[in-house]
Amino acid sequence: MKYYLGIDIGGMSVKAGIITDDGKMVAKKTVETSAKGRTDDFIADMAKLAEEVTAEAGLCKSQISGVGMGVPGTVNTDTGVVTYACNIGFRNTPLAERFKELFGVSPKLANDADAAALGEVKFGAGNNANDALMITLGTGVGTGIIINGKIFSGRHGMGGESGHTVIVVDGELCGCGRRGCFEAYASATALIRQTEKAAEKYPDSEIAAIIARDGKVSGTTAFRAYKAGDAAGKEVVENYVKYIGEGTANLVNIFRPEIILVGGGVSNEGEYFIEMIENYVNANTYGRELNSEITVRKAALGNDAGIFGAAALCM
Amino acid sequence: MKYYLGIDIGGMSVKAGIITDDGKMVAKKTVETSAKGRTDDFIADMAKLAEEVTAEAGLCKSQISGVGMGVPGTVNTDTGVVTYACNIGFRNTPLAERFKELFGVSPKLANDADAAALGEVKFGAGNNANDALMITLGTGVGTGIIINGKIFSGRHGMGGESGHTVIVVDGELCGCGRRGCFEAYASATALIRQTEKAAEKYPDSEIAAIIARDGKVSGTTAFRAYKAGDAAGKEVVENYVKYIGEGTANLVNIFRPEIILVGGGVSNEGEYFIEMIENYVNANTYGRELNSEITVRKAALGNDAGIFGAAALCM
Repeated sequence: MKYYLGIDIGGMSVKAGIITDDGKMVAKKTVETSAKGRTDDFIADMAKLAEEVTAEAGLCKSQISGVGMGVPGTVNTDTGVVTYACNIGFRNTPLAERFKELFGVSPKLANDADAAALGEVKFGAGNNANDALMITLGTGVGTGIIINGKIFSGRHGMGGESGHTVIVVDGELCGCGRRGCFEAYASATALIRQTEKAAEKYPDSEIAAIIARDGKVSGTTAFRAYKAGDAAGKEVVENYVKYIGEGTANLVNIFRPEIILVGGGVSNEGEYFIEMIENYVNANTYGRELNSEITVRKAALGNDAGIFGAAALCM
Repeated sequence: MKYYLGIDIGGMSVKAGIITDDGKMVAKKTVETSAKGRTDDFIADMAKLAEEVTAEAGLCKSQISGVGMGVPGTVNTDTGVVTYACNIGFRNTPLAERFKELFGVSPKLANDADAAALGEVKFGAGNNANDALMITLGTGVGTGIIINGKIFSGRHGMGGESGHTVIVVDGELCGCGRRGCFEAYASATALIRQTEKAAEKYPDSEIAAIIARDGKVSGTTAFRAYKAGDAAGKEVVENYVKYIGEGTANLVNIFRPEIILVGGGVSNEGEYFIEMIENYVNANTYGRELNSEITVRKAALGNDAGIFGAAALCM
């Protein structure tokens, strides 16, 4: 049995787990990231967490076959330098080198969304597929691309930003400064905006009634109206599925994966929603009459995907 | 010195060349593809052409280190089967196997646009870059993706269709049946349509005058009006550059290449047009303040790129 240490760095907390080569998590530990902005302290906290979770698994350091880290930002995967991670205040930070000085093992780094995709594919809903995509519908749209069992994130790990591919030229303003990105139409944030607009446009709709009752709009408002048979709800949900489907079909035409995993808060809506995406994608990919159908499935590992994936970076 | 045989299959003709490992073409031969639809005859013609060009180079077959082919269609690069190539009437045709029976060497296959991209990158304007994109602006929009010095065309070679990624949801109808594809906005065909529309909208423009004088619209009409200082010409050209730039920036965000090569008829417009694309792309990629600028350059090999690239499949 081999043991791997996976570390998932978030804006609010750092999670670490010990994962066996057959995909079991034998220990897990989380710390708050109070040292945000103070890079050296932050890395020292991570090394301490690594020591602790190793001990909790009843292992000594020499029994760890490899360490991987998911970083919420842009990572040069060749050099182990975090180019930019605004949520934790890293900028051109030689994370791999600094961590090795403290823990004795040089970690492999990846973007956190990429690591989560790898975890889902290897140990979650991805059936260990060779070629897969993961689309995470949250505050933004994260995408993870797995080619030949490995994360693909462009030259030096500086690409892979499929959430920032434009699907509507001159469209909605995206957080990245460009207009019309996939993220600006398919994120939970975008869904909420689309729901608000529909409520204004159709004040007598069930959507508007739900918002009035709840006192707020959420990522489930439109789905609840849709399920109640509301025409406005139907319009919002079907358009939202279209946006997700168009961005996803684009990636299918480029990568032709075996499977697509959908994660993030919105993916919890239910199997019917995942099926709507699957149907849209299969009806809209290039050469659909020649290729086998694409399976779309809900991600299974939830918040642990990042730890599994970070560990899998070294397997 | 090693010699490679590159075969570029077109809808109208098949071209074959002998390429040395330092990128010189020492023999070249072309035949008309009269056998369209009769697959066995077609492959026999190709084998004969291969014999002839080998003899023309003063070589015997055993001196050929490898054979590569660019095919105008969808190719399973793992099995050597042409899944579908409508222009030559191939469908699930085991081309590699059949060709080997006649010529004695099993060829490596690639899509023709992919092969041309590889040829341009290795022996043309691409400076032998490890990671590059080629965008061919012709009747359609062809894209070739080079990762780590190799063609990337998705699982089993069934992806890589970046010309069929939607940049305008619900936009112009594309030949593939989907709406809003990159190809439907950035091809020469699209430019002509955009030019026609501008002439209708601005009947007093130089664009309209040029069309009246020429008796037709072409891929250069809008550029000529633009260079004459016409406002309608400026609008068409700047919008066309925007469409090319948006589709290209999308691919940069995913792949982060070192260099982008622009080919096809429209690329002959001149250095100023290539520079407009370069400026647009660099102003619109993700994390542009963190990444080095992308170089955009006109392709250099013209119609021979496919032969060079086919040969390079085996190098």
